Amino acid sequence: MPNPRITTVDVTRVTGRDSAHGDDSVVIEEPLEIRAAWTANGEPREKSISVTMRTPGDDADLAAGFLFTEGLLRSADDVESLRHWSSPNVIRVALSEGARIDASKLDRHFYTTSSCGVCGKTSIEALRVATTSEPYQSHPVTAELIHQLPNRLQEHQEAFRATGGLHAAALFDFTGSVVRSREDIGRHNAVDKVIGSLFLERRTPLSDTILMVSSRGSFEIVQKAIVAGIPVVASVGAPSTLAIELASEFHLTLLGFVRNERFNVYAGEVQ
Amino acid sequence: MPNPRITTVDVTRVTGRDSAHGDDSVVIEEPLEIRAAWTANGEPREKSISVTMRTPGDDADLAAGFLFTEGLLRSADDVESLRHWSSPNVIRVALSEGARIDASKLDRHFYTTSSCGVCGKTSIEALRVATTSEPYQSHPVTAELIHQLPNRLQEHQEAFRATGGLHAAALFDFTGSVVRSREDIGRHNAVDKVIGSLFLERRTPLSDTILMVSSRGSFEIVQKAIVAGIPVVASVGAPSTLAIELASEFHLTLLGFVRNERFNVYAGEVQ
Repeated sequence: MPNPRITTVDVTRVTGRDSAHGDDSVVIEEPLEIRAAWTANGEPREKSISVTMRTPGDDADLAAGFLFTEGLLRSADDVESLRHWSSPNVIRVALSEGARIDASKLDRHFYTTSSCGVCGKTSIEALRVATTSEPYQSHPVTAELIHQLPNRLQEHQEAFRATGGLHAAALFDFTGSVVRSREDIGRHNAVDKVIGSLFLERRTPLSDTILMVSSRGSFEIVQKAIVAGIPVVASVGAPSTLAIELASEFHLTLLGFVRNERFNVYAGEVQ
Repeated sequence: MPNPRITTVDVTRVTGRDSAHGDDSVVIEEPLEIRAAWTANGEPREKSISVTMRTPGDDADLAAGFLFTEGLLRSADDVESLRHWSSPNVIRVALSEGARIDASKLDRHFYTTSSCGVCGKTSIEALRVATTSEPYQSHPVTAELIHQLPNRLQEHQEAFRATGGLHAAALFDFTGSVVRSREDIGRHNAVDKVIGSLFLERRTPLSDTILMVSSRGSFEIVQKAIVAGIPVVASVGAPSTLAIELASEFHLTLLGFVRNERFNVYAGEVQ
Protein backbone atom coordinates (compact mmCIF):
# COMPACT_ATOMS: atom_id res chain seq x y z
CA MET A 1 0.00 0.00 0.00
CA PRO A 2 1.50 3.36 -0.93
CA ASN A 3 2.32 5.68 1.93
CA PRO A 4 -0.04 8.69 1.77
CA ARG A 5 2.61 10.95 3.30
CA ILE A 6 5.00 10.78 0.35
CA THR A 7 4.85 11.23 -3.39
CA THR A 8 7.20 10.81 -6.34
CA VAL A 9 8.74 13.65 -8.35
CA ASP A 10 11.13 13.91 -11.30
CA VAL A 11 14.61 14.85 -10.26
CA THR A 12 18.04 15.40 -11.75
CA ARG A 13 20.72 13.82 -9.58
CA VAL A 14 24.09 15.55 -9.85
CA THR A 15 27.20 13.69 -8.69
CA GLY A 16 30.45 15.53 -9.26
CA ARG A 17 30.23 16.51 -12.96
CA ASP A 18 27.72 13.83 -13.90
CA SER A 19 23.97 14.12 -13.88
CA ALA A 20 21.12 11.70 -14.45
CA HIS A 21 17.35 11.97 -14.50
CA GLY A 22 15.27 9.83 -12.19
CA ASP A 23 12.51 9.62 -9.59
CA ASP A 24 12.64 10.74 -5.99
CA SER A 25 10.30 10.29 -3.03
CA VAL A 26 9.35 13.59 -1.44
CA VAL A 27 7.38 14.30 1.72
CA ILE A 28 4.01 15.97 1.19
CA GLU A 29 3.58 19.41 2.78
CA GLU A 30 0.14 21.02 2.71
CA PRO A 31 -1.49 23.66 4.91
CA LEU A 32 -4.16 22.56 7.40
CA GLU A 33 -6.67 25.05 8.70
CA ILE A 34 -8.14 24.17 12.10
CA ARG A 35 -11.61 25.63 12.69
CA ALA A 36 -13.66 25.51 15.88
CA ALA A 37 -17.47 25.67 16.09
CA TRP A 38 -19.38 26.16 19.33
CA THR A 39 -22.44 27.83 20.83
CA ALA A 40 -22.25 30.94 22.99
CA ASN A 41 -25.39 32.49 24.49
CA GLY A 42 -27.52 30.38 22.20
CA GLU A 43 -25.73 31.66 19.10
CA PRO A 44 -23.62 29.41 16.87
CA ARG A 45 -20.06 30.64 16.54
CA GLU A 46 -17.29 29.47 14.29
CA LYS A 47 -13.72 30.63 14.06
CA SER A 48 -10.51 29.78 12.27
CA ILE A 49 -7.97 28.90 14.95
CA SER A 50 -4.79 28.27 13.01
CA VAL A 51 -3.16 27.39 9.74
CA THR A 52 -0.24 25.02 10.05
CA MET A 53 1.96 23.47 7.38
CA ARG A 54 1.69 19.73 7.90
CA THR A 55 2.02 16.34 6.27
CA PRO A 56 -1.50 15.03 5.56
CA GLY A 57 -2.74 12.07 7.61
CA ASP A 58 -3.83 11.91 11.25
CA ASP A 59 -5.39 15.36 10.88
CA ALA A 60 -7.90 14.74 13.67
CA ASP A 61 -5.07 13.74 16.00
CA LEU A 62 -3.12 16.85 15.01
CA ALA A 63 -6.07 19.20 15.59
CA ALA A 64 -6.98 17.58 18.92
CA GLY A 65 -3.37 17.56 20.09
CA PHE A 66 -2.84 21.18 19.13
CA LEU A 67 -6.02 22.38 20.85
CA PHE A 68 -5.23 20.31 23.95
CA THR A 69 -1.59 21.32 24.31
CA GLU A 70 -2.51 24.97 23.69
CA GLY A 71 -5.01 24.83 26.54
CA LEU A 72 -8.10 25.31 24.35
CA LEU A 73 -9.49 21.81 24.96
CA ARG A 74 -9.33 20.05 28.31
CA SER A 75 -11.28 16.83 27.74
CA ALA A 76 -12.26 14.61 24.82
CA ASP A 77 -15.82 14.90 26.14
CA ASP A 78 -15.79 18.49 24.96
CA VAL A 79 -15.48 17.32 21.35
CA GLU A 80 -18.72 16.47 19.57
CA SER A 81 -17.15 15.89 16.16
CA LEU A 82 -13.81 16.38 14.49
CA ARG A 83 -13.86 16.06 10.72
CA HIS A 84 -12.67 17.46 7.43
CA TRP A 85 -14.87 20.30 6.26
CA SER A 86 -15.25 21.32 2.62
CA SER A 87 -11.59 20.53 1.90
CA PRO A 88 -9.04 17.87 2.84
CA ASN A 89 -6.97 20.77 4.16
CA VAL A 90 -9.60 22.09 6.56
CA ILE A 91 -10.58 20.31 9.78
CA ARG A 92 -13.47 21.46 11.95
CA VAL A 93 -13.85 20.76 15.64
CA ALA A 94 -17.45 21.00 16.82
CA LEU A 95 -17.67 21.31 20.59
CA SER A 96 -20.22 19.35 22.63
CA GLU A 97 -23.30 21.11 23.93
CA GLY A 98 -22.36 23.00 27.02
CA ALA A 99 -18.66 22.64 26.34
CA ARG A 100 -16.83 25.90 26.52
CA ILE A 101 -13.85 27.21 24.69
CA ASP A 102 -11.94 30.08 26.19
CA ALA A 103 -12.81 32.75 23.64
CA SER A 104 -10.33 35.13 25.23
CA LYS A 105 -7.60 32.70 24.24
CA LEU A 106 -8.93 32.76 20.68
CA ASP A 107 -9.02 36.50 20.77
CA ARG A 108 -5.40 36.48 21.78
CA HIS A 109 -4.86 34.93 18.36
CA PHE A 110 -3.54 31.48 18.97
CA TYR A 111 -1.90 30.57 15.74
CA THR A 112 0.49 27.77 15.12
CA THR A 113 2.81 26.48 12.49
CA SER A 114 4.48 23.27 11.55
CA SER A 115 7.01 23.74 14.28
CA CYS A 116 5.73 26.04 16.96
CA GLY A 117 3.23 26.25 19.71
CA VAL A 118 3.92 29.68 21.11
CA CYS A 119 2.59 31.83 18.31
CA GLY A 120 -0.19 34.19 19.10
CA LYS A 121 0.90 34.81 22.63
CA THR A 122 1.39 38.49 22.12
CA SER A 123 3.33 39.09 25.26
CA ILE A 124 6.41 37.29 26.40
CA GLU A 125 4.97 36.95 29.87
CA ALA A 126 2.18 34.79 28.46
CA LEU A 127 4.62 32.11 27.37
CA ARG A 128 5.02 30.44 30.70
CA VAL A 129 1.44 31.07 31.79
CA ALA A 130 0.14 28.69 29.14
CA THR A 131 1.68 25.87 31.11
CA THR A 132 -0.74 25.68 34.02
CA SER A 133 -0.03 22.12 35.18
CA GLU A 134 1.29 21.58 38.65
CA PRO A 135 4.85 20.32 38.93
CA TYR A 136 4.93 16.56 39.33
CA GLN A 137 7.45 14.19 40.80
CA SER A 138 10.32 13.08 38.63
CA HIS A 139 9.75 9.60 37.26
CA PRO A 140 12.74 7.25 37.56
CA VAL A 141 14.07 5.87 34.29
CA THR A 142 17.06 3.63 33.74
CA ALA A 143 19.85 4.13 31.23
CA GLU A 144 19.19 0.61 29.96
CA LEU A 145 15.65 1.61 29.01
CA ILE A 146 16.69 4.87 27.33
CA HIS A 147 19.38 3.16 25.24
CA GLN A 148 16.67 1.04 23.58
CA LEU A 149 14.55 3.94 22.37
CA PRO A 150 16.45 5.34 19.35
CA ASN A 151 16.31 2.11 17.37
CA ARG A 152 12.65 1.63 18.19
CA LEU A 153 11.89 5.19 17.08
CA GLN A 154 13.71 4.56 13.80
CA GLU A 155 11.67 1.42 13.18
CA HIS A 156 8.59 3.66 13.07
CA GLN A 157 10.11 6.27 10.73
CA GLU A 158 8.81 4.71 7.55
CA ALA A 159 8.25 7.91 5.62
CA PHE A 160 11.54 9.41 6.80
CA ARG A 161 13.46 6.45 5.41
CA ALA A 162 11.87 7.12 2.02
CA THR A 163 12.27 10.88 1.92
CA GLY A 164 14.70 12.10 4.60
CA GLY A 165 12.22 14.90 5.16
CA LEU A 166 10.10 14.06 8.20
CA HIS A 167 10.29 14.35 11.94
CA ALA A 168 9.08 11.54 14.18
CA ALA A 169 7.68 11.49 17.69
CA ALA A 170 6.91 8.36 19.69
CA LEU A 171 5.52 7.73 23.13
CA PHE A 172 6.98 4.75 24.99
CA ASP A 173 5.87 3.05 28.19
CA PHE A 174 8.38 2.19 30.91
CA THR A 175 9.02 -1.26 29.46
CA GLY A 176 10.25 0.42 26.26
CA SER A 177 7.21 -0.52 24.16
CA VAL A 178 5.85 2.01 21.69
CA VAL A 179 2.46 3.33 22.78
CA ARG A 180 1.99 5.57 19.72
CA SER A 181 4.17 7.07 16.98
CA ARG A 182 3.60 9.65 14.27
CA GLU A 183 5.57 11.42 11.53
CA ASP A 184 5.20 14.94 10.14
CA ILE A 185 7.23 17.53 8.27
CA GLY A 186 6.89 19.71 11.40
CA ARG A 187 8.42 18.40 14.58
CA HIS A 188 5.73 19.98 16.76
CA ASN A 189 3.02 18.48 14.60
CA ALA A 190 4.45 15.00 15.14
CA VAL A 191 4.22 15.58 18.91
CA ASP A 192 0.68 17.01 18.64
CA LYS A 193 -0.41 13.97 16.60
CA VAL A 194 0.92 11.53 19.20
CA ILE A 195 -0.59 13.41 22.14
CA GLY A 196 -3.85 14.18 20.30
CA SER A 197 -4.47 10.59 19.34
CA LEU A 198 -4.22 9.52 22.99
CA PHE A 199 -6.22 12.55 24.17
CA LEU A 200 -9.09 11.46 21.92
CA GLU A 201 -8.89 7.98 23.50
CA ARG A 202 -9.18 9.65 26.94
CA ARG A 203 -5.73 8.40 27.96
CA THR A 204 -4.34 11.72 29.17
CA PRO A 205 -2.60 12.56 31.47
CA LEU A 206 0.18 10.39 30.06
CA SER A 207 1.99 10.03 33.35
CA ASP A 208 3.59 6.64 32.68
CA THR A 209 5.25 7.47 29.38
CA ILE A 210 8.43 8.77 27.76
CA LEU A 211 8.23 11.10 24.74
CA MET A 212 11.03 10.65 22.23
CA VAL A 213 11.51 13.04 19.31
CA SER A 214 13.82 12.71 16.30
CA SER A 215 14.57 16.41 16.46
CA ARG A 216 15.94 18.81 19.02
CA GLY A 217 14.36 19.44 22.41
CA SER A 218 13.02 22.99 22.40
CA PHE A 219 10.81 24.96 24.76
CA GLU A 220 7.57 24.11 22.99
CA ILE A 221 8.24 20.36 22.94
CA VAL A 222 8.75 20.42 26.71
CA GLN A 223 5.70 22.66 27.15
CA LYS A 224 3.50 20.22 25.23
CA ALA A 225 4.82 17.30 27.27
CA ILE A 226 4.05 19.10 30.53
CA VAL A 227 0.49 19.94 29.49
CA ALA A 228 -0.01 16.25 28.60
CA GLY A 229 1.50 15.08 31.90
CA ILE A 230 4.45 13.30 30.26
CA PRO A 231 7.32 13.08 32.80
CA VAL A 232 10.28 12.28 30.51
CA VAL A 233 11.35 13.83 27.18
CA ALA A 234 14.22 12.34 25.16
CA SER A 235 15.49 13.95 21.96
CA VAL A 236 17.95 12.73 19.34
CA GLY A 237 19.20 16.29 18.99
CA ALA A 238 20.28 19.09 21.31
CA PRO A 239 18.14 20.85 23.91
CA SER A 240 17.84 24.62 24.29
CA THR A 241 18.39 26.73 27.40
CA LEU A 242 14.68 27.50 27.76
CA ALA A 243 13.74 23.83 27.41
CA ILE A 244 16.15 22.97 30.23
CA GLU A 245 14.79 25.77 32.45
CA LEU A 246 11.18 24.74 31.89
CA ALA A 247 11.96 21.05 32.46
CA SER A 248 13.78 21.86 35.71
CA GLU A 249 10.91 24.04 36.92
CA PHE A 250 8.34 21.25 36.35
CA HIS A 251 10.56 18.34 37.47
CA LEU A 252 10.49 16.83 34.00
CA THR A 253 13.43 14.61 33.04
CA LEU A 254 15.05 16.03 29.88
CA LEU A 255 17.54 13.93 27.91
CA GLY A 256 19.42 15.06 24.80
CA PHE A 257 21.67 13.52 22.13
CA VAL A 258 20.02 10.16 22.79
CA ARG A 259 21.76 7.85 20.31
CA ASN A 260 24.37 5.12 20.03
CA GLU A 261 24.11 3.99 23.67
CA ARG A 262 24.82 7.50 24.88
CA PHE A 263 22.83 10.48 26.11
CA ASN A 264 23.08 13.59 28.27
CA VAL A 265 20.84 14.34 31.26
CA TYR A 266 19.90 18.03 31.28
CA ALA A 267 17.17 17.91 33.94
CA GLY A 268 16.00 15.22 36.36
CA GLU A 269 17.83 12.00 37.12
CA VAL A 270 18.49 8.66 35.49
CA GLN A 271 19.17 5.50 37.48
CA MET B 1 35.51 36.32 23.06
CA PRO B 2 32.63 34.14 24.26
CA ASN B 3 29.89 33.47 21.73
CA PRO B 4 26.70 35.23 22.95
CA ARG B 5 24.52 32.57 21.34
CA ILE B 6 25.63 29.74 23.62
CA THR B 7 25.96 29.11 27.33
CA THR B 8 27.31 26.36 29.58
CA VAL B 9 25.20 24.02 31.71
CA ASP B 10 25.87 21.14 34.07
CA VAL B 11 25.19 17.80 32.50
CA THR B 12 25.41 14.11 33.32
CA ARG B 13 26.84 12.17 30.37
CA VAL B 14 25.67 8.57 30.22
CA THR B 15 27.61 6.09 28.09
CA GLY B 16 26.38 2.53 28.32
CA ARG B 17 26.18 1.89 32.08
CA ASP B 18 28.66 4.62 33.02
CA SER B 19 27.89 8.19 33.85
CA ALA B 20 29.97 11.28 34.55
CA HIS B 21 29.24 14.86 35.46
CA GLY B 22 30.56 17.66 33.31
CA ASP B 23 29.84 20.82 31.35
CA ASP B 24 28.00 21.17 28.07
CA SER B 25 27.52 24.06 25.64
CA VAL B 26 23.85 24.72 24.93
CA VAL B 27 22.23 27.08 22.44
CA ILE B 28 20.29 29.96 23.97
CA GLU B 29 16.57 30.09 23.16
CA GLU B 30 14.55 33.12 24.25
CA PRO B 31 11.33 34.68 22.97
CA LEU B 32 11.52 37.89 20.96
CA GLU B 33 8.51 40.15 20.69
CA ILE B 34 8.45 42.35 17.58
CA ARG B 35 6.46 45.57 18.04
CA ALA B 36 5.64 48.17 15.39
CA ALA B 37 4.95 51.85 16.03
CA TRP B 38 3.54 54.22 13.42
CA THR B 39 1.20 57.18 12.95
CA ALA B 40 -2.24 56.86 11.42
CA ASN B 41 -4.48 59.92 10.93
CA GLY B 42 -2.20 61.90 13.21
CA GLU B 43 -2.57 59.40 16.03
CA PRO B 44 0.36 57.34 17.30
CA ARG B 45 -0.29 53.60 17.06
CA GLU B 46 1.69 50.71 18.41
CA LYS B 47 1.07 47.00 18.07
CA SER B 48 2.67 43.71 18.95
CA ILE B 49 3.29 41.90 15.68
CA SER B 50 4.71 38.57 16.74
CA VAL B 51 6.48 36.54 19.37
CA THR B 52 9.09 34.18 18.01
CA MET B 53 11.45 31.83 19.83
CA ARG B 54 14.92 32.79 18.71
CA THR B 55 18.60 32.76 19.59
CA PRO B 56 19.57 36.27 20.79
CA GLY B 57 21.83 38.33 18.54
CA ASP B 58 21.07 40.08 15.25
CA ASP B 59 17.60 40.94 16.55
CA ALA B 60 17.28 44.00 14.30
CA ASP B 61 18.12 41.84 11.28
CA LEU B 62 15.58 39.26 12.37
CA ALA B 63 12.80 41.82 12.87
CA ALA B 64 13.54 43.58 9.57
CA GLY B 65 13.77 40.29 7.68
CA PHE B 66 10.54 39.00 9.14
CA LEU B 67 8.60 42.19 8.39
CA PHE B 68 10.05 42.35 4.87
CA THR B 69 9.47 38.71 3.92
CA GLU B 70 5.94 38.86 5.38
CA GLY B 71 5.16 41.85 3.16
CA LEU B 72 4.75 44.34 6.01
CA LEU B 73 7.84 46.40 5.08
CA ARG B 74 8.86 47.17 1.52
CA SER B 75 11.84 49.51 1.91
CA ALA B 76 14.48 50.28 4.51
CA ASP B 77 13.45 53.92 4.04
CA ASP B 78 10.22 53.07 5.85
CA VAL B 79 12.19 52.31 9.03
CA GLU B 80 12.95 55.26 11.27
CA SER B 81 14.44 53.22 14.10
CA LEU B 82 14.76 49.60 15.07
CA ARG B 83 15.86 49.00 18.65
CA HIS B 84 15.37 47.03 21.82
CA TRP B 85 12.56 48.44 23.91
CA SER B 86 12.30 47.98 27.68
CA SER B 87 13.69 44.44 27.46
CA PRO B 88 16.42 42.60 25.53
CA ASN B 89 13.58 40.33 24.34
CA VAL B 90 11.45 43.10 22.84
CA ILE B 91 12.38 44.93 19.63
CA ARG B 92 10.43 47.94 18.39
CA VAL B 93 10.27 49.08 14.78
CA ALA B 94 9.31 52.75 14.46
CA LEU B 95 8.19 53.63 10.95
CA SER B 96 9.32 56.79 9.20
CA GLU B 97 6.94 59.71 8.92
CA GLY B 98 4.59 59.06 6.09
CA ALA B 99 5.53 55.40 5.88
CA ARG B 100 2.58 53.10 5.93
CA ILE B 101 2.09 49.67 7.30
CA ASP B 102 -0.77 47.62 5.94
CA ALA B 103 -2.91 47.52 9.07
CA SER B 104 -5.24 45.02 7.46
CA LYS B 105 -2.33 42.61 7.37
CA LEU B 106 -1.78 43.22 11.06
CA ASP B 107 -5.45 42.71 11.70
CA ARG B 108 -5.19 39.39 9.93
CA HIS B 109 -2.86 38.52 12.80
CA PHE B 110 0.51 37.94 11.29
CA TYR B 111 2.31 35.91 13.87
CA THR B 112 5.46 33.99 13.43
CA THR B 113 7.57 31.46 15.24
CA SER B 114 11.09 30.23 15.20
CA SER B 115 10.39 28.17 12.14
CA CYS B 116 7.43 29.53 10.25
CA GLY B 117 6.35 32.38 8.13
CA VAL B 118 2.81 31.40 7.26
CA CYS B 119 1.12 31.83 10.62
CA GLY B 120 -1.68 34.27 10.84
CA LYS B 121 -2.94 33.74 7.35
CA THR B 122 -6.31 32.56 8.46
CA SER B 123 -7.31 31.10 5.16
CA ILE B 124 -5.40 28.62 3.11
CA GLU B 125 -5.99 30.69 -0.01
CA ALA B 126 -3.97 33.51 1.52
CA LEU B 127 -0.82 31.41 1.61
CA ARG B 128 0.15 31.89 -1.98
CA VAL B 129 -1.16 35.44 -2.17
CA ALA B 130 1.51 36.64 0.24
CA THR B 131 4.05 36.03 -2.49
CA THR B 132 3.33 38.93 -4.80
CA SER B 133 6.60 39.07 -6.71
CA GLU B 134 6.56 38.49 -10.42
CA PRO B 135 8.15 35.28 -11.67
CA TYR B 136 11.71 35.89 -12.77
CA GLN B 137 14.03 34.12 -15.15
CA SER B 138 15.92 31.13 -13.86
CA HIS B 139 19.51 32.03 -13.05
CA PRO B 140 22.12 29.61 -14.41
CA VAL B 141 24.33 27.96 -11.79
CA THR B 142 27.01 25.36 -12.30
CA ALA B 143 27.43 22.10 -10.41
CA GLU B 144 31.01 23.12 -9.68
CA LEU B 145 29.77 26.22 -7.83
CA ILE B 146 27.13 24.35 -5.85
CA HIS B 147 29.59 21.65 -4.72
CA GLN B 148 31.64 24.33 -2.94
CA LEU B 149 28.81 25.68 -0.81
CA PRO B 150 28.33 23.05 1.95
CA ASN B 151 31.88 23.37 3.28
CA ARG B 152 31.69 27.15 3.19
CA LEU B 153 28.39 27.08 5.06
CA GLN B 154 29.94 24.83 7.71
CA GLU B 155 32.84 27.22 8.17
CA HIS B 156 30.29 29.80 9.33
CA GLN B 157 28.48 27.46 11.74
CA GLU B 158 30.49 28.42 14.78
CA ALA B 159 27.71 28.06 17.35
CA PHE B 160 26.45 24.83 15.77
CA ARG B 161 29.85 23.20 16.18
CA ALA B 162 29.73 24.02 19.88
CA THR B 163 26.15 22.97 20.58
CA GLY B 164 24.72 20.88 17.72
CA GLY B 165 21.58 22.93 18.22
CA LEU B 166 21.44 25.67 15.59
CA HIS B 167 20.40 26.12 12.01
CA ALA B 168 22.48 28.17 9.61
CA ALA B 169 21.61 30.19 6.53
CA ALA B 170 24.10 31.83 4.20
CA LEU B 171 23.80 33.90 1.09
CA PHE B 172 26.48 33.34 -1.57
CA ASP B 173 27.29 35.29 -4.71
CA PHE B 174 27.87 33.50 -8.01
CA THR B 175 31.60 33.21 -7.39
CA GLY B 176 30.82 31.15 -4.25
CA SER B 177 31.79 33.86 -1.77
CA VAL B 178 29.68 34.30 1.36
CA VAL B 179 27.74 37.57 1.26
CA ARG B 180 26.17 37.08 4.71
CA SER B 181 25.58 34.21 7.14
CA ARG B 182 23.57 33.82 10.33
CA GLU B 183 22.71 31.12 12.88
CA ASP B 184 19.54 30.62 14.92
CA ILE B 185 17.69 27.88 16.77
CA GLY B 186 14.89 28.41 14.22
CA ARG B 187 15.66 27.72 10.59
CA HIS B 188 13.32 30.47 9.37
CA ASN B 189 14.90 32.95 11.75
CA ALA B 190 18.34 32.24 10.30
CA VAL B 191 16.93 33.07 6.84
CA ASP B 192 15.15 36.20 8.11
CA LYS B 193 18.38 37.39 9.75
CA VAL B 194 20.37 37.00 6.52
CA ILE B 195 17.73 38.69 4.37
CA GLY B 196 16.94 41.37 6.96
CA SER B 197 20.55 42.40 7.37
CA LEU B 198 20.85 43.03 3.60
CA PHE B 199 17.40 44.64 3.46
CA LEU B 200 18.56 47.21 6.02
CA GLU B 201 21.61 47.88 3.83
CA ARG B 202 19.22 48.51 0.90
CA ARG B 203 20.69 45.58 -1.04
CA THR B 204 17.38 43.88 -1.89
CA PRO B 205 16.30 42.48 -4.32
CA LEU B 206 19.06 39.89 -3.96
CA SER B 207 18.93 38.78 -7.55
CA ASP B 208 22.57 37.70 -7.89
CA THR B 209 22.69 35.34 -4.91
CA ILE B 210 22.19 31.77 -3.80
CA LEU B 211 20.56 31.02 -0.44
CA MET B 212 21.89 27.91 1.30
CA VAL B 213 20.26 26.50 4.44
CA SER B 214 21.53 23.79 6.77
CA SER B 215 17.99 22.44 7.15
CA ARG B 216 15.30 21.17 4.81
CA GLY B 217 13.77 23.22 2.02
CA SER B 218 10.16 23.92 2.97
CA PHE B 219 7.46 26.16 1.52
CA GLU B 220 8.24 29.12 3.76
CA ILE B 221 11.96 29.10 2.99
CA VAL B 222 11.16 29.27 -0.73
CA GLN B 223 8.51 31.92 -0.10
CA LYS B 224 10.98 34.14 1.77
CA ALA B 225 13.56 33.71 -1.02
CA ILE B 226 11.02 34.75 -3.65
CA VAL B 227 9.97 37.87 -1.73
CA ALA B 228 13.66 38.81 -1.45
CA GLY B 229 14.28 38.14 -5.16
CA ILE B 230 16.75 35.29 -4.53
CA PRO B 231 16.78 33.02 -7.62
CA VAL B 232 18.44 29.87 -6.19
CA VAL B 233 17.80 27.96 -2.94
CA ALA B 234 20.04 25.07 -1.89
CA SER B 235 19.33 22.98 1.21
CA VAL B 236 21.39 20.34 2.97
CA GLY B 237 18.17 18.44 3.71
CA ALA B 238 15.12 17.34 1.76
CA PRO B 239 12.58 19.60 0.04
CA SER B 240 8.80 19.31 0.42
CA THR B 241 6.17 18.99 -2.30
CA LEU B 242 4.88 22.52 -1.70
CA ALA B 243 8.37 23.99 -1.85
CA ILE B 244 8.92 22.31 -5.22
CA GLU B 245 5.56 23.56 -6.56
CA LEU B 246 6.20 27.12 -5.43
CA ALA B 247 9.75 27.08 -6.83
CA SER B 248 8.51 25.79 -10.19
CA GLU B 249 5.77 28.41 -10.35
CA PHE B 250 8.24 31.27 -9.76
CA HIS B 251 11.12 29.82 -11.83
CA LEU B 252 13.32 29.53 -8.76
CA THR B 253 16.06 26.89 -8.86
CA LEU B 254 15.56 24.50 -5.92
CA LEU B 255 18.34 22.08 -4.94
CA GLY B 256 18.15 19.50 -2.15
CA PHE B 257 20.51 17.10 -0.33
CA VAL B 258 23.41 19.39 -1.24
CA ARG B 259 26.41 17.66 0.35
CA ASN B 260 29.45 15.53 -0.42
CA GLU B 261 29.75 16.64 -4.07
CA ARG B 262 26.16 15.59 -4.74
CA PHE B 263 22.75 17.22 -4.94
CA ASN B 264 19.32 16.84 -6.51
CA VAL B 265 17.67 19.43 -8.79
CA TYR B 266 13.97 19.72 -7.91
CA ALA B 267 13.16 22.85 -9.93
CA GLY B 268 15.09 24.87 -12.49
CA GLU B 269 18.28 23.79 -14.19
CA VAL B 270 21.95 23.43 -13.38
CA GLN B 271 24.68 23.67 -15.99
